[in-house]
Amino acid sequence: MIVNGVRIVDPFFTIKSGWMDFSDKILSVGTFDGNTVPSDLILMPGFVDTHVHGGAGYDFMDEDIDFDKIEAHFFSMGVTSVLATTLTAPIDKIKRVTKKIKQRIEENEYTPLVGVHLEGPIISPKYLGAQNPKYVVIGAKENVQRLIDGYEDTIKVMTVAIEQCEDSAIRYIMSRGIRVSVGHSDASFEDFKEVHEFGVNHLTHFCNAMAPLHHRHIGLVGAGLFFDDVDLEIIPDGIHLDKDMLSLILKAHPIEHIIAITDGMRATGLDDGIYDLGGLKVRVENDSARLSDGTLAGSILEYNEGLKRLHNLGLSLNEIAMVSSFNPSNVAKPSTPKGRILPGYDADFVLMDENFSIRKVIKKGKIVYSI
Amino acid sequence: MIVNGVRIVDPFFTIKSGWMDFSDKILSVGTFDGNTVPSDLILMPGFVDTHVHGGAGYDFMDEDIDFDKIEAHFFSMGVTSVLATTLTAPIDKIKRVTKKIKQRIEENEYTPLVGVHLEGPIISPKYLGAQNPKYVVIGAKENVQRLIDGYEDTIKVMTVAIEQCEDSAIRYIMSRGIRVSVGHSDASFEDFKEVHEFGVNHLTHFCNAMAPLHHRHIGLVGAGLFFDDVDLEIIPDGIHLDKDMLSLILKAHPIEHIIAITDGMRATGLDDGIYDLGGLKVRVENDSARLSDGTLAGSILEYNEGLKRLHNLGLSLNEIAMVSSFNPSNVAKPSTPKGRILPGYDADFVLMDENFSIRKVIKKGKIVYSI
Repeated sequence: MIVNGVRIVDPFFTIKSGWMDFSDKILSVGTFDGNTVPSDLILMPGFVDTHVHGGAGYDFMDEDIDFDKIEAHFFSMGVTSVLATTLTAPIDKIKRVTKKIKQRIEENEYTPLVGVHLEGPIISPKYLGAQNPKYVVIGAKENVQRLIDGYEDTIKVMTVAIEQCEDSAIRYIMSRGIRVSVGHSDASFEDFKEVHEFGVNHLTHFCNAMAPLHHRHIGLVGAGLFFDDVDLEIIPDGIHLDKDMLSLILKAHPIEHIIAITDGMRATGLDDGIYDLGGLKVRVENDSARLSDGTLAGSILEYNEGLKRLHNLGLSLNEIAMVSSFNPSNVAKPSTPKGRILPGYDADFVLMDENFSIRKVIKKGKIVYSI
Repeated sequence: MIVNGVRIVDPFFTIKSGWMDFSDKILSVGTFDGNTVPSDLILMPGFVDTHVHGGAGYDFMDEDIDFDKIEAHFFSMGVTSVLATTLTAPIDKIKRVTKKIKQRIEENEYTPLVGVHLEGPIISPKYLGAQNPKYVVIGAKENVQRLIDGYEDTIKVMTVAIEQCEDSAIRYIMSRGIRVSVGHSDASFEDFKEVHEFGVNHLTHFCNAMAPLHHRHIGLVGAGLFFDDVDLEIIPDGIHLDKDMLSLILKAHPIEHIIAITDGMRATGLDDGIYDLGGLKVRVENDSARLSDGTLAGSILEYNEGLKRLHNLGLSLNEIAMVSSFNPSNVAKPSTPKGRILPGYDADFVLMDENFSIRKVIKKGKIVYSI
């Protein structure tokens, strides 16, 4: 199949008016041949959300989940790859969810699911965010083994409070090829520095659920600003981080290490109201989801809207492709290459207008969303 | 006179083994001629402290001050230029102090005093630090006029809480050629952005006496990290900013816009004990000076010790020369050029060893300190 007369935006180049030939993979890309009237559409790599809990009424922790519906919801936002993100819950329950995701990936060729991000249950009681304190466990190696053994290929990221972990537990996660992300954590700058030395380089929803930066204990926020090679998850909803903080992060940190996520919860795409999040009651109104004490409980951010905000703050479309697809693909580690508009890469892409309205979404060469 | 066989460190070059010919000005500089046995001494431009309240038992606010003694104290730390910094006090008193400093500058050729830094009385009641709340005034243009009229050539910097100021007051200060520095302030990022647009580019003791950075209101700390052209005063005592915060600032901000200051109070160079600071009682112990509630009340940092700390954190000697002399000279605006080891510049320089121990200090060609 061929798309013609579109602006092709790869993280590392732009073709003002180009064409792309594809099957399930991208076959070739070139400059517009002039025989077709150019559209004003933008073609970008499909978005990759490495931290999202649900949407369209479903949470990945639900026993009963309509995968077709939640996947259609992701496609509608241009998201073609997802790490299904779990919540702090009994370990057996987390394992059941992981198993279910693994099955879905195996059974459905066009699922956007590419793996699991375990968020908790090894987190700090001080930075719970909207995680259920009842199911928090300590970071003993045995707990880690129970969580991941048998699912090393499905679990791609594990968010932990490093200060609650045995060193051997952190090393065990890494030895299984799973990325350790530090989050929901009271770790000091020194704590982070230690694990950074042996390769930990990811911070979960940077600035959220960690101590703010103080000039006498700069903590994880300081670590994220200090170490250029650390991947920073950011929620660009303007609420989890205000626009000035977003600007500061984009100014201070290399764009190659920024990962746009939604941390979306089940109400994303639905109306305001009261929803459940891992057994906690969450009120959704005014573009935010909060516990009764006001604590933010994930977001209801639509992925493409977050990208529009980042574009308005000054990121070029190439940089948008980087933070939304190329960088998170390095995190999600799909079995086939994603995140660029080059021959050999999966034909996962979006067609959108300049306002970030999604027009068509293609997953492995198949049109999965169209308006 | 000639110094020979020393390592010459200018902000922009190093001569491993060199010589310098000088009278009151530097006359010429060159590579060591080989006829003298090289010493292991380092020759650098004299240090310039643009924010210091006193030392050796004296505070610039004292009615009775022995200038020879306090100046000898500055020379002993390698400081050859000083902006005498006032405290929040009745306006008439501040004017008397300014007048006294002006006279000293006029009457003593070798004084390190080159001007005045007015810290307060237009500050935020919320970020008093160790300023006396009794004498805080609002930032009306008339108050500013009372403070500076007639002393435009002596006052070089004025620290104000911009959110307490009329725009016309800020513009008035700038129109008199005086630098506005934002400090002791509750200003938001937006507040700062507004005045930055018309040229305000200085933050008083960065991070101290301002709101810490929060990811939903990044404030003045965020402004300092965001705007590369803003001069940041830093107190490198390891207490006002811990070593990690110092590292973060040095990493995130251009070295051309870092100004090392001491904010030193009268007890600098003296023993622990109880001292007065603008009518407030200050306890000096464990390398810090604090009010009874623990609030830091200036420092007792010796300038060269601060530089040693910055060197240990990774600044090269050239960068040390930049933050200690070249950059603050741009702030202090002495009537003759300082801050470089080049012909035509004032012969203000230090000879020190690699441990930052000061051996000799020369002011306008005269040896003013020697051990």
